[in-house]
Amino acid sequence: MANAVKEAWKDGRAVVNGWLAIPNAFSAEMYSKCGWDSVTVDMQHGVQDYLSCVSCFQGIQPSGAVPMVRVPWNEPGIVGKVLDAGAYGVICPMVNTAEEARALVQYCKYPPAGTRSNGPIRAGAYGSSGNYQKTANDEILVIPMIETRTAIENIEEILDVPGIDGIYVGPSDLSFSYGLEPKLDVEDPFILGIYDKLLAETSKRGIAAGLHNGTAAYANKMIRKGFKLVTIANEVGLMVAAAKAAVAEARG
Amino acid sequence: MANAVKEAWKDGRAVVNGWLAIPNAFSAEMYSKCGWDSVTVDMQHGVQDYLSCVSCFQGIQPSGAVPMVRVPWNEPGIVGKVLDAGAYGVICPMVNTAEEARALVQYCKYPPAGTRSNGPIRAGAYGSSGNYQKTANDEILVIPMIETRTAIENIEEILDVPGIDGIYVGPSDLSFSYGLEPKLDVEDPFILGIYDKLLAETSKRGIAAGLHNGTAAYANKMIRKGFKLVTIANEVGLMVAAAKAAVAEARG
Amino acid sequence: MANAVKEAWKDGRAVVNGWLAIPNAFSAEMYSKCGWDSVTVDMQHGVQDYLSCVSCFQGIQPSGAVPMVRVPWNEPGIVGKVLDAGAYGVICPMVNTAEEARALVQYCKYPPAGTRSNGPIRAGAYGSSGNYQKTANDEILVIPMIETRTAIENIEEILDVPGIDGIYVGPSDLSFSYGLEPKLDVEDPFILGIYDKLLAETSKRGIAAGLHNGTAAYANKMIRKGFKLVTIANEVGLMVAAAKAAVAEARG
Amino acid sequence: MANAVKEAWKDGRAVVNGWLAIPNAFSAEMYSKCGWDSVTVDMQHGVQDYLSCVSCFQGIQPSGAVPMVRVPWNEPGIVGKVLDAGAYGVICPMVNTAEEARALVQYCKYPPAGTRSNGPIRAGAYGSSGNYQKTANDEILVIPMIETRTAIENIEEILDVPGIDGIYVGPSDLSFSYGLEPKLDVEDPFILGIYDKLLAETSKRGIAAGLHNGTAAYANKMIRKGFKLVTIANEVGLMVAAAKAAVAEARG
Amino acid sequence: MANAVKEAWKDGRAVVNGWLAIPNAFSAEMYSKCGWDSVTVDMQHGVQDYLSCVSCFQGIQPSGAVPMVRVPWNEPGIVGKVLDAGAYGVICPMVNTAEEARALVQYCKYPPAGTRSNGPIRAGAYGSSGNYQKTANDEILVIPMIETRTAIENIEEILDVPGIDGIYVGPSDLSFSYGLEPKLDVEDPFILGIYDKLLAETSKRGIAAGLHNGTAAYANKMIRKGFKLVTIANEVGLMVAAAKAAVAEARG
Amino acid sequence: MANAVKEAWKDGRAVVNGWLAIPNAFSAEMYSKCGWDSVTVDMQHGVQDYLSCVSCFQGIQPSGAVPMVRVPWNEPGIVGKVLDAGAYGVICPMVNTAEEARALVQYCKYPPAGTRSNGPIRAGAYGSSGNYQKTANDEILVIPMIETRTAIENIEEILDVPGIDGIYVGPSDLSFSYGLEPKLDVEDPFILGIYDKLLAETSKRGIAAGLHNGTAAYANKMIRKGFKLVTIANEVGLMVAAAKAAVAEARG
Repeated sequence: MANAVKEAWKDGRAVVNGWLAIPNAFSAEMYSKCGWDSVTVDMQHGVQDYLSCVSCFQGIQPSGAVPMVRVPWNEPGIVGKVLDAGAYGVICPMVNTAEEARALVQYCKYPPAGTRSNGPIRAGAYGSSGNYQKTANDEILVIPMIETRTAIENIEEILDVPGIDGIYVGPSDLSFSYGLEPKLDVEDPFILGIYDKLLAETSKRGIAAGLHNGTAAYANKMIRKGFKLVTIANEVGLMVAAAKAAVAEARG
Repeated sequence: MANAVKEAWKDGRAVVNGWLAIPNAFSAEMYSKCGWDSVTVDMQHGVQDYLSCVSCFQGIQPSGAVPMVRVPWNEPGIVGKVLDAGAYGVICPMVNTAEEARALVQYCKYPPAGTRSNGPIRAGAYGSSGNYQKTANDEILVIPMIETRTAIENIEEILDVPGIDGIYVGPSDLSFSYGLEPKLDVEDPFILGIYDKLLAETSKRGIAAGLHNGTAAYANKMIRKGFKLVTIANEVGLMVAAAKAAVAEARG
Repeated sequence: MANAVKEAWKDGRAVVNGWLAIPNAFSAEMYSKCGWDSVTVDMQHGVQDYLSCVSCFQGIQPSGAVPMVRVPWNEPGIVGKVLDAGAYGVICPMVNTAEEARALVQYCKYPPAGTRSNGPIRAGAYGSSGNYQKTANDEILVIPMIETRTAIENIEEILDVPGIDGIYVGPSDLSFSYGLEPKLDVEDPFILGIYDKLLAETSKRGIAAGLHNGTAAYANKMIRKGFKLVTIANEVGLMVAAAKAAVAEARG
Repeated sequence: MANAVKEAWKDGRAVVNGWLAIPNAFSAEMYSKCGWDSVTVDMQHGVQDYLSCVSCFQGIQPSGAVPMVRVPWNEPGIVGKVLDAGAYGVICPMVNTAEEARALVQYCKYPPAGTRSNGPIRAGAYGSSGNYQKTANDEILVIPMIETRTAIENIEEILDVPGIDGIYVGPSDLSFSYGLEPKLDVEDPFILGIYDKLLAETSKRGIAAGLHNGTAAYANKMIRKGFKLVTIANEVGLMVAAAKAAVAEARG
Repeated sequence: MANAVKEAWKDGRAVVNGWLAIPNAFSAEMYSKCGWDSVTVDMQHGVQDYLSCVSCFQGIQPSGAVPMVRVPWNEPGIVGKVLDAGAYGVICPMVNTAEEARALVQYCKYPPAGTRSNGPIRAGAYGSSGNYQKTANDEILVIPMIETRTAIENIEEILDVPGIDGIYVGPSDLSFSYGLEPKLDVEDPFILGIYDKLLAETSKRGIAAGLHNGTAAYANKMIRKGFKLVTIANEVGLMVAAAKAAVAEARG
Repeated sequence: MANAVKEAWKDGRAVVNGWLAIPNAFSAEMYSKCGWDSVTVDMQHGVQDYLSCVSCFQGIQPSGAVPMVRVPWNEPGIVGKVLDAGAYGVICPMVNTAEEARALVQYCKYPPAGTRSNGPIRAGAYGSSGNYQKTANDEILVIPMIETRTAIENIEEILDVPGIDGIYVGPSDLSFSYGLEPKLDVEDPFILGIYDKLLAETSKRGIAAGLHNGTAAYANKMIRKGFKLVTIANEVGLMVAAAKAAVAEARG
């Protein structure tokens, strides 16, 4: 069960990541075929729960995109469940301290690295090798979200936690926590300065930095800046934008 | 329960229609807010069944768009069920003869115009007037699809069937039935000649002609040509096109 | 798998029947415990489809009420499926001729009485006797709805069809078909005269007459008049009436 | 996105609140049209989870009733999710200390008042103003449940927590915690004395007190006593009571 | 979209076919990985409907087994929908005459061979070639069930209908129609004689004969007898047998 | 609401327990009829969530097997919800300390023994006695899982926590935590020595020890060793094993 995202990062390539808010396997299936390297089920702000995540994973699978999940919270029950369902990466919101990062790693790793419980009901049936338990700790990505002032202040300690494979930046929450307007595709030099620091600190440790973007143009710019995991809005956002444009053009 | 599509047609305005293939109320809700005059749940080729149609109708409702449905087949059970669920218009595939058109009208209308059974479980709860049964026959649109050579050959008889409010052209099936490649946004003069004839015959009888389109540009052209109901692909098609474009742009 | 409705009728007792429009097993479960002799899943006007019918049957089961279904239409596919799911009675809308009644019987009975296909996936697992196929033809009730002028005109021929266990009257459609206002709990002498005739003709043949009612008071009156199967609105109608009353009383 | 419950309270009016235990959008839709000021999805004791809550919110919306939720527990993941789904009020069980109340406020409010994460996937699409993030902290109601002896002992500190808009009393748990029989519509002078104290303390601070009731008659009495948010059983309870009464009356 | 079942038949190999009665994608996914050449969703006697069929197809896909469906009835609406969903084979119950077989072929084939409507929403997205409409008529298997005395009497005419790729024998219905006990794994020489005739007639025309079996041992015998498509019970039947055996063994 | 598992234990009998990973009521219903004493919905490693648990409970009910649940984590929200849904036993993963065991007991018991909130929406409707709240604390089983080295080290303190009715051993996690290969049906003398200790300590306190097994043969051996609750794989595992065997046998 080699993780293609991890391989891309080893090769220095950036990963273009899809984002699923619609709790439906058919929608996920069609969207996943569009060329994404990985597709993430958003259980935090998306209209998703555990069973819809499983359905979306089934929809993602034929595309070959790497299935990941953003969990709703840093809580061991749900982290264990999405890993058992076959997540190859866990993006966790609001990780603000090294202690929280260590807890996340604990939930994601089998002993002795962590305390994940054994029972990969769907994950273990991927591939044919049958050695899921031996490779899971190495292959599954643990990615805390860095999206508050507190997290920035603790960033070096957080990044030093063993088992962290990358970080994922939530720009609107980050801005919010500094008293700025919450939005994506930020041009504010202060926030961009934080990005520079995050890129430097992650790069120094050989781990990846990811970013949530509103547009493909901005995502492209961020790849060139050094981000290794870029998401573009989500599937429902792309649909809504396309629909509004289509209505306008049809009306003339 | 005045039907805004009917009112638009009375005013000579064309209606821009959305099309739902994803069986999910959230997706339907977000898509319906994009400015469509009406939104049609596609139970024939979409991934929809009766209960997903009800869910989509609930998703459509806050937008104010007129809820319509394309039924899977000209069959009284399902026609009755979608009307009871609150459809303001029924688009029926593969109506090839006047007899089939008369059957469709029968299924859609309460006595004495037809044989629809009384029990508008959700439809009757729309609005506050409580006179659904008195107005339904007038307000609900009955729209056979004209999409085969046989239907074209029988077109005048079909259009003369009392109770038909419009027709809806399926370009790919129409082309297929003439031995041409099945596709949308046709430029073939032979097919366009058929469109001219359909516009003339419907116009003569004061009823509307609708068309399924692949792109907003073509839909706009068809409005200018005289079509009064134009659909642009469906929501999943718009999403997929936008996703492919986003991936390409992000990769640069 | 003795059918308690059939036994009640043999004893001359009337059956009080529940009616399910909400497609949910929990709702069905709570409602079914309220003392009904039988509970019918309404797949015609209720918000029900085949899988929700199966769920409702699972909800009905602990109550001991006899599970029945009103199918959406007189069509062999769905009749077979609800029987396989465990229906002990099939109420079929809009049976207007003896031919239609014979078709319904064919769909409901195993050979040689009919053409039902063998495969009672859930029905066969009821009880412990394992002789479902031997008793189904005798125990499962076949109940055409009599709800149009045409049906009344053909009533004797319809009732003479072998295999019919009873009829079920839909008052609002019946009124509609005679050009009257479609409603329940009719006091119109003309319609009541039809009821008298139906009671006489069914009684003569030893089969039961059922009626859909809007209120319990009217249902009680109809039991005293001779109807052997009375339904009172449906579960959502009872809920809505109770909720409106509660709001009004709370506001004072 | 003005919150009509908040406006009612400003005007000194009591709010009559519905309560949803059935996880179904159609049921929610029909029930919500019955005149309630607000309708609360009960994720604690109701048969509800996050996705059924979203469905129920879609069912509530056409009625104009204010959508609220009782969360299963004081946990940031689920609080964030129901707010993103469009809850205008969060009722949280078992808040026993000021610390727990402060945590609840944190979960419900955007910075700087709290730590809610930005991403109102469905909530942000309500209305047309597009300023959800600017008004959410003011409009969304934060309502801890006061339902244990411990909470009563800490009541002043709890009520002093900034951001609390009201309290909601769970009578059966409250009685239980004092060693009394757990029930609604209490007449025990000891419990009624607690109600008096709660009304006095909330009134003093300009915040509202709510109460769960078993009957409309008791709810009406409690409005006259000073409660500003009264619930009457839940929709399934009303249905069951109505069904039992109907069966009894039909049998005569 | 080469159909591996068709290729096996060209090579003279028999196909071992799975059968899905449980309407769940996870169950379908685990079961499909067990080595079946094809897996059929049973919409007739299984607890399946259209949307569960789509879910099961998504569950089948990673296994590489060929997805097929037994439709509930020979009806154009549902045949079109399962083909659009991606069925590579349609098994249709109770085909008793050449006319019924011709109708089935019409529903399954695009023009000019049939009247299937164009819109392969999920089927068209399989593979990368994009030429679904050009190959579907050749690749998708049309398989009427032969399971009544009438069908046997009409067998030569049925088999002569152009477009039929094979037949599928339902032993219990076949026995039932001859007045015998309905069961699988028949040893009755009369029925076995019918099998011989069916094998001879299909072989003569270069088409395949399939059979529903209760046990793997019998299925193996039938492969050796000449059947080219053998099914063994269904997934829930295998589970129940295994569970009963496990309980007995655990109790000792 | 007498709990048959508790009664079996009083009589010294071992309980054979089923295990549900498939989130479907029909599957649960068929499986539950196979002779199990109790059936547990696995919300930790199974593909289950709260609403699927409710569905499975409805599927279990006609069988008479005792419905239990393994919760995903030791968290009060979900423990309360499954009890309200009708669980007669709660198996909780990863209970490693007496403090965690006490917390679990608190979540499971009504006052004064614990802090469970009152509202047994489905549980209260079981049976006819109406005294659920009076008997629940006595009848509902509280069963922590003992599956880590830490738990073994704390075992006496854990077992001394009042309200614990038994323990359930997870062999693969237990092995994992000692640095051994995670597997079921262990023959390693070290692990078997731990089992002996657990049997001795539970027996001394009059409480039961349970074990998760991979095969019926091993489960039988463990009953003879003294375990009072044995599970054999889960329903999907039994199905997969049976399907693989059937395919192999059919191919010959």
